[in-house]
Amino acid sequence: MIQYPEPLAKLIESYTKLPGIGQKTATRLAFYTLSMQEDDVTNFAKSLLSAKRDLHNCSICGNITEDDPCPICRDKTRDHSQILVVEQSQDVMAMERMHEYHGLYHVLHGVISPVAGTGPEDINITSLLKRLKKDDEVKEIIIATNASSDGELTAGYLAKLIKPAGIKVTRLAHGLSVGADIDYADEMTLFKAVQGRTEM
Amino acid sequence: MIQYPEPLAKLIESYTKLPGIGQKTATRLAFYTLSMQEDDVTNFAKSLLSAKRDLHNCSICGNITEDDPCPICRDKTRDHSQILVVEQSQDVMAMERMHEYHGLYHVLHGVISPVAGTGPEDINITSLLKRLKKDDEVKEIIIATNASSDGELTAGYLAKLIKPAGIKVTRLAHGLSVGADIDYADEMTLFKAVQGRTEM
Repeated sequence: MIQYPEPLAKLIESYTKLPGIGQKTATRLAFYTLSMQEDDVTNFAKSLLSAKRDLHNCSICGNITEDDPCPICRDKTRDHSQILVVEQSQDVMAMERMHEYHGLYHVLHGVISPVAGTGPEDINITSLLKRLKKDDEVKEIIIATNASSDGELTAGYLAKLIKPAGIKVTRLAHGLSVGADIDYADEMTLFKAVQGRTEM
Repeated sequence: MIQYPEPLAKLIESYTKLPGIGQKTATRLAFYTLSMQEDDVTNFAKSLLSAKRDLHNCSICGNITEDDPCPICRDKTRDHSQILVVEQSQDVMAMERMHEYHGLYHVLHGVISPVAGTGPEDINITSLLKRLKKDDEVKEIIIATNASSDGELTAGYLAKLIKPAGIKVTRLAHGLSVGADIDYADEMTLFKAVQGRTEM
């Protein structure tokens, strides 16, 4: 039986290493690559290498950055008294798209998860504590881990750890999404919405 | 608002150029790339460049190949009296996986499509006719374009063109898939199955 030519087989193999891409999709993508403009393919290859080579985690907040410290940590106009703690770099971008938060961030790169065997020492908590010790400007830690059980566990762990230092610890509100129908909301979300109701 | 660091933004842009990959998936893939082994990323970049640089269409059959002519056209043990005509290189691999066809191939790189404005001169037909003129070893052309309306149109066009030269032209059988239920088959497939019924 004839096999795919080696360069094509290797490209298919590379595509299958991406999440959610199986043999069929990888083959389709590889053939598509052959039909792409030469420039686009060259830029694709360059951007793969450059992303891997030029991006690092900020030594202060752990967010992905080209320069260390990252532009957010360096920005004197931002409110350095607030640190918002997120699970991953993508969450920083989600918060920034909101345009309404002007404090700093801290990226945990994971959550405490007994099921996955991830303990507090496996995520970026030590550097958060170091930050708080070094910098007494910080007045509030806003915990923005996801509303999953692991996210809640991590939030609880952090609160217990930080509160004794006299720093205010808050958690993002849970409740109905804006525009959501009550009869489509799940029980946990409804429970959180009732629990966190506000006076009008 | 903070933007993604440039190397990451460029990588996301490259991923969005692939078919079926939007902004969200591209972002997910780009972040995943950052977490990949350095070697895997380097190999990915290399295979992109190599696939684009080292692969060409065989000057005889049009199939994708590293060497020209391709291994199938060069293979003296294959039956050079049969040419199976397909729409795209992927179809050659599908036929080869069957292990039962030992003739040659011809890849059209498309079909005649009045809707898309693709005429006979836009696909790899001229080189097929040249092949037939030069090589009187060919006894049969098996047309294996898809069973779509464009595929049927192309098949009809080729048959009309080749038959006068005294070469046998055949078409792959259409009918029920092996293992298919009759009550789930569409009308056209059932019609083709009845039309092409064989004596037992």
